[in-house]
Amino acid sequence: MLIVQKFGGSSVADAQRVFNVARIVTETYDKGNDMVVVVSAQGDTTDDLIEKAREINPDASKREMDMLLSAGEQMSVALLAMAIEKLGRPVVSLLGWQAGFLTNSNYSAARIKNVNTERIRNELDKHRIVIVAGFQGINRHDDVTTLGRGGSDTSAVAIAATMRADLCQIYTDVEGVYTADPRKVQGARKLTEITYDEMLELATLGAQVLNNRSVDMAKKYNVELEVLSSLKQVPGTKVKEVAKLEDMLIKSVAKDTNVARVMLVGVPDEPGVAFRIFSLVAKAHINVDIILQSVGRDGTKDIAFTVSADKGEAALNALRPYLEQVGAKQYSYDDSVAKVSIVGAGMETHEGTAALMFEALADANVNIQMIATSEIKVSVLIAREDADRAVAAVHKRFFEN
Amino acid sequence: MLIVQKFGGSSVADAQRVFNVARIVTETYDKGNDMVVVVSAQGDTTDDLIEKAREINPDASKREMDMLLSAGEQMSVALLAMAIEKLGRPVVSLLGWQAGFLTNSNYSAARIKNVNTERIRNELDKHRIVIVAGFQGINRHDDVTTLGRGGSDTSAVAIAATMRADLCQIYTDVEGVYTADPRKVQGARKLTEITYDEMLELATLGAQVLNNRSVDMAKKYNVELEVLSSLKQVPGTKVKEVAKLEDMLIKSVAKDTNVARVMLVGVPDEPGVAFRIFSLVAKAHINVDIILQSVGRDGTKDIAFTVSADKGEAALNALRPYLEQVGAKQYSYDDSVAKVSIVGAGMETHEGTAALMFEALADANVNIQMIATSEIKVSVLIAREDADRAVAAVHKRFFEN
Repeated sequence: MLIVQKFGGSSVADAQRVFNVARIVTETYDKGNDMVVVVSAQGDTTDDLIEKAREINPDASKREMDMLLSAGEQMSVALLAMAIEKLGRPVVSLLGWQAGFLTNSNYSAARIKNVNTERIRNELDKHRIVIVAGFQGINRHDDVTTLGRGGSDTSAVAIAATMRADLCQIYTDVEGVYTADPRKVQGARKLTEITYDEMLELATLGAQVLNNRSVDMAKKYNVELEVLSSLKQVPGTKVKEVAKLEDMLIKSVAKDTNVARVMLVGVPDEPGVAFRIFSLVAKAHINVDIILQSVGRDGTKDIAFTVSADKGEAALNALRPYLEQVGAKQYSYDDSVAKVSIVGAGMETHEGTAALMFEALADANVNIQMIATSEIKVSVLIAREDADRAVAAVHKRFFEN
Repeated sequence: MLIVQKFGGSSVADAQRVFNVARIVTETYDKGNDMVVVVSAQGDTTDDLIEKAREINPDASKREMDMLLSAGEQMSVALLAMAIEKLGRPVVSLLGWQAGFLTNSNYSAARIKNVNTERIRNELDKHRIVIVAGFQGINRHDDVTTLGRGGSDTSAVAIAATMRADLCQIYTDVEGVYTADPRKVQGARKLTEITYDEMLELATLGAQVLNNRSVDMAKKYNVELEVLSSLKQVPGTKVKEVAKLEDMLIKSVAKDTNVARVMLVGVPDEPGVAFRIFSLVAKAHINVDIILQSVGRDGTKDIAFTVSADKGEAALNALRPYLEQVGAKQYSYDDSVAKVSIVGAGMETHEGTAALMFEALADANVNIQMIATSEIKVSVLIAREDADRAVAAVHKRFFEN
């Protein structure tokens, strides 16, 4: 089998953990598998480098930031290779450009255009374990680019997709994907399997197990993913096209507190108003999540939407100069909110899933401010102080019967 | 003018020093010069990385060590570029491979085969200051190599040679080349000019101002070097083919305490003995410095030679099993010695220079154990405890009249 394994920064944070990873890798290799291993920068290396750059120039070009940050993975691949040498297995480390990662020129958030895996194949043919620096590539000018936060997941999936790997294992500091955050919700259970779409919804909900771009890519190229712990050797959660139903209506309850709500009150109830508002927000490069529009009355209506809390100020600034032009009578801003969501492909075929959730919230005396639904997700906006209680109540209703 | 500037690790050790370097670079750029700047890793970065590697695998392959260590320069070039961006000048940083450094595959001590300066030229055509990572290149397999300690000097000279730069400035933490170590010898004077050959002799004597390979290369391609301080803006010392005589018989007095003496007593006075001894030492990859052979008497002679003190044990070990075969009656080893030398192209045309030195030593009551001479150098081996006194006495005789 060809197996791609990916280890995040915390998994290789110090010498002891590097050896722990080396042991996982060599054990898989010893079973006769071809191994490509993608590694992130050690522990806080990336943050430390960003801090160093800030000290010198907070407005440094993204090109030079990428040059700086990509050194982080360069160090970790070499150190992991050294640990594997110590364990006596043949190994070689490769930087992004050596592993054939060609990206566009969007520094700091580059997209992979192509992975020329010739070098990796050659090394595998020599029965070497191939360690690849995640998060980085080069553009067509031979300049170093980085894929943005979580980019190492994408690197791993891109290799798995291009080489048609049998499995892509994403090692993290959690044991898999849970029905709810196991640190917060008692009784949260680890899922054996989950579909790409469910995983995508969970990722956008702030469950930071897997980078969304990587899941998207895995779905597109049908790469079987497994999320598992580098610290505890137990089976993780598989992410695939069709997951076993496991008799579960939904897969997970998630909470996102990085949310702010903007409301424009009394805008004219006429065509083009929503377009004007959201094109202003889009121009500021701010993603809007939930949008709620009231029914028009007396020729006006209210429009509310949510953005991530760290973009709240920017969204307000983008709109404020145009409030008169848009025709808004007043506006409000609230960042003491949270989003609680249930995710599950099962709800497509089960009516009443949303109602069950609302009932659970009502029983817990949680007031719902906004609602948004997709085929496999129901999200509600509530007061942030109610969030943990809401998650517990919803989780109990769906999973603890 | 095309000017290559090189800054060592201590010159870019922290944010403040990085800006100091950025100012030197931009001032030279603002005068209308094309600028290529070679930088080493910051301060102790390389040593820290070596320590990290040792912790994981003291016997790590050189290939992976080079992968690890080359990250050091990657960080420093990016940070220097950011500082220059902050000062508002156009700049781009390049890694060894991007700057076209092709080396052989001798990891950790690779030799430059070729510098393809096309990319550097393109960047200069755009009027950018080009920052190049010193010390590193790639081999024909696209693997990262390093040039060994002091390799950044060689990187700078290689660029200057290939691009026919008008000047190659090596910035260090000293102000130039002195008639003796200014920290040790009162009255030591900075030289305005010195020849390549003199500089080479000084470098082998342990005056660590310039890496020897870089001087060798500068001589071969006639690159004008200047050694100067990054902390104090005063003219340094120029290194060139023909230096102004400045009415100086010699240029410098140097001391080397990294010396040990091996003596083989009573070897047969017959052809081939010296060959047998020194081929054994050469096989152990040990460089021999001074060799002294006594006049034969009663069919035997004594052979003494010096090696660097850190190779002393290894030299003994190489010889010990063959002492009988070589025919030596006994041997002795002494690492409490030092070498004091005078260097100067002037002595070629001035008889009696060596005699002047010996007189100065005799007046200071310093006993000479061995003597070696070249066209532009006279070295004596003396007891280490006499070394500082000897240097002072010789310096006084030549420079303080």
